[in-house]
Amino acid sequence: MSDAELPQPETESTQLDEDDRLKPEFVDAVLDAVEDGDDEAVRQLVEPLHPADIADLFELTPSERRPALAKAIADLLDGEVFAEMNDYVREDLIDALEPHEVADIASELDTDDAVAIIEDLDADDQREVLRAMEPDDRAAIEEALSYPEESAGRLMQRELIAVPEHWTVGDVIDYLRADDALTTDFWEVFVVDPSHKPVGTCKLSWIMRTPRPVPLSDVMQREQTLIAVDMDQEEVALRFQKYALISAAVVDGSGRLVGMVTVDDIVHIISEEAGEDALLLSGAGEGDINEPVITSYRARVRWLIANLATALVAATVITLFEGTISKMVALAALMPIVAGVGGNAGTQTMAVTVRALATNQLTESNTLRAIRREISIALLNGVTVAIVIGIAVSLYYQHIELGGVIAAAMMANILIAGLAGVVVPLTLERLRADPAVASSIFVTMTTDSMGFFVFLGLASASGLVG
Amino acid sequence: MSDAELPQPETESTQLDEDDRLKPEFVDAVLDAVEDGDDEAVRQLVEPLHPADIADLFELTPSERRPALAKAIADLLDGEVFAEMNDYVREDLIDALEPHEVADIASELDTDDAVAIIEDLDADDQREVLRAMEPDDRAAIEEALSYPEESAGRLMQRELIAVPEHWTVGDVIDYLRADDALTTDFWEVFVVDPSHKPVGTCKLSWIMRTPRPVPLSDVMQREQTLIAVDMDQEEVALRFQKYALISAAVVDGSGRLVGMVTVDDIVHIISEEAGEDALLLSGAGEGDINEPVITSYRARVRWLIANLATALVAATVITLFEGTISKMVALAALMPIVAGVGGNAGTQTMAVTVRALATNQLTESNTLRAIRREISIALLNGVTVAIVIGIAVSLYYQHIELGGVIAAAMMANILIAGLAGVVVPLTLERLRADPAVASSIFVTMTTDSMGFFVFLGLASASGLVG
Repeated sequence: MSDAELPQPETESTQLDEDDRLKPEFVDAVLDAVEDGDDEAVRQLVEPLHPADIADLFELTPSERRPALAKAIADLLDGEVFAEMNDYVREDLIDALEPHEVADIASELDTDDAVAIIEDLDADDQREVLRAMEPDDRAAIEEALSYPEESAGRLMQRELIAVPEHWTVGDVIDYLRADDALTTDFWEVFVVDPSHKPVGTCKLSWIMRTPRPVPLSDVMQREQTLIAVDMDQEEVALRFQKYALISAAVVDGSGRLVGMVTVDDIVHIISEEAGEDALLLSGAGEGDINEPVITSYRARVRWLIANLATALVAATVITLFEGTISKMVALAALMPIVAGVGGNAGTQTMAVTVRALATNQLTESNTLRAIRREISIALLNGVTVAIVIGIAVSLYYQHIELGGVIAAAMMANILIAGLAGVVVPLTLERLRADPAVASSIFVTMTTDSMGFFVFLGLASASGLVG
Repeated sequence: MSDAELPQPETESTQLDEDDRLKPEFVDAVLDAVEDGDDEAVRQLVEPLHPADIADLFELTPSERRPALAKAIADLLDGEVFAEMNDYVREDLIDALEPHEVADIASELDTDDAVAIIEDLDADDQREVLRAMEPDDRAAIEEALSYPEESAGRLMQRELIAVPEHWTVGDVIDYLRADDALTTDFWEVFVVDPSHKPVGTCKLSWIMRTPRPVPLSDVMQREQTLIAVDMDQEEVALRFQKYALISAAVVDGSGRLVGMVTVDDIVHIISEEAGEDALLLSGAGEGDINEPVITSYRARVRWLIANLATALVAATVITLFEGTISKMVALAALMPIVAGVGGNAGTQTMAVTVRALATNQLTESNTLRAIRREISIALLNGVTVAIVIGIAVSLYYQHIELGGVIAAAMMANILIAGLAGVVVPLTLERLRADPAVASSIFVTMTTDSMGFFVFLGLASASGLVG
């Protein structure tokens, strides 16, 4: 074999670009073939794709053309593809299927993936799909649905390997080889006591490196992270991150093993939860580009109206100083600078604080330190920006007092912004509200109103005008 | 055993709160014992902690008290604790250690974790630490350091299991049991050809479920995701997410297996990269609360100065209309509303677009669709907000024309904001710049300037004043 050979299979180059995204030409080729009714050509193009890429293909296809694509590759459209698909795109497709077809797809999957597909259906469809399933699968899914949304109970799969403590390594290997009905994909074996409570976990690599006669209790790790079945998925994700878990046992209220969460389900949640904050801080709701327009509109307009209300407060502050402004119209041009740069400084501090709270880095132990730190940074930022704007305004307007007033106002507003940016999210967290959701409204209102108030107030009080 | 027994080990309750963070009382108790010089008490408190919690303990300790804590628990401060620690906190501690102590700590770790500790040292210290290491470890780390920062070469560990294709399941098990020097923690076995190129992977669970005489080539999966050694860590993270990988083979330019990346190293990167966008969009740089004040100041003040420059552009727009404002000062109070709400609408669209780009959801195939979608949402938002503000202003000022002007300006600015919010990040991405870093400056400048221009321009042109 020559050194020039590429590590990636050759087929990928025609479908995926260097960033591992489907090439637009490939998507077009598939959609052209769908349009021509050439199902054989569609199949040939799509078959080599990984399920995750087939799911992407649907997301990249305009919604009105998805049903035709689904029809052309009906036999490739299995549970795994649905499990990988964006929620909105999946809902659309699932809605077009018969209940027994959905039941067939769900039956192929582990509980967690089947639940993800079924939980979004409306109550009637859900009932019909469940009725079309095998009793065992049905019971597992009904139980999962009985747990709160976004809890470990919804995330977990019931397919796992649990063995008694008194077994040897050899017993485990024989058990795994003998029973064809066992799950095939697992990374750890859970060791349980007679009442089915976990007493330890054993990585498969440890078992494989150990001679057959060694008792499992000598190989297993007794300290383990157990997940309560009603734990919120964000909490579950934080534990997986913190303790570098690959899989973890899920236990019910009485401590009995009821399921397993695996890291591949968690990576999506980690990414979602971490990425969510940028969207929440901006008031864009879930911010999925596959979300229906009307859903996005509802989420965003609420925020804009709230923002409008806070802008009206700031406008009222300005109204107090209309007399001052009418005597020196330059103030009207300059006041948005004080408010705007202050708003930005506040947003910086707020983003840092929200992130530190979300990652459990900021707790009661270091709250005071974090506030002191933000004030120090705000002082440095304030002095720098005040000097720049002070000099610029003094020179441009040939008016040193005006330069002095805007410099002082800028300094004050950046300090206020730094304080608001750290105190607002901390207070919301203390009140058990999500700091990412509501912080920016309060911080912006503070920096806008105070920016206008301090600048116009100083201009008025300093005898700059009239 | 009674049902009332809690699933978590009892010790956790005194150290960790319900969100799995160290309790402030516990941190205080440790620090008090450190202050009293009672090393035995410190040890007793800290010993039961997981390495990740010991790392957290250091992060929660004020920086001036960390060296004393480190001294008190020197023997508990192993490589794993350092691997879990925040970069800034770790650098601080490592700086206080002798090169041979750092070398000892690094030697305990897999290559990736050792590299994480050593890569941040300055060149002289790095050389000294490397000189104090065993030749094998040293060679592995020097090779890793030869790859670009944040590349797969830095992330990967060289400890992995690679076996020839012609082996049977039994051969693999015997090999793993016989050689004590092999790594103990792995999830998959890589199958390689005689030139050490990967030809397939085998999950341990598949091997364990298969009888000994079966050849590995019948069990392994031939389709696998290979990671190029110079691939950026963000790309690596996206592949792990997309293909739900637990571990992946890293190959050099000629396709030979050189290392393995495992998912536990990836979850940190997924979280970092996803959370980073909120910080970058706000101009807060890396935004770590453990960052030195001066580093945060440098990162943030650059952004505030850039913001100041764009605010000056908006101020210039206002200056054009000073005549109009002096005739009707109410315009000065109202104009920030148009700019502010527009800015918010732009930020919403921008956050959604940046997120979709970061997750590879938005490609050339659906760009036009995304733009159309954002325009539709902007139209709906614009109409709604325009009606509300139009009515409010008409009533408050008893001036229907003024209400009409602000409604029209608001509608126009929200539309402009929606367009800028999607086009700016898309353009930056096309230009191979990071859309999260620069988008908000451009979007804010657009919504501020256009907000003032459209509102004051309409007020002036409509004959509302003078």
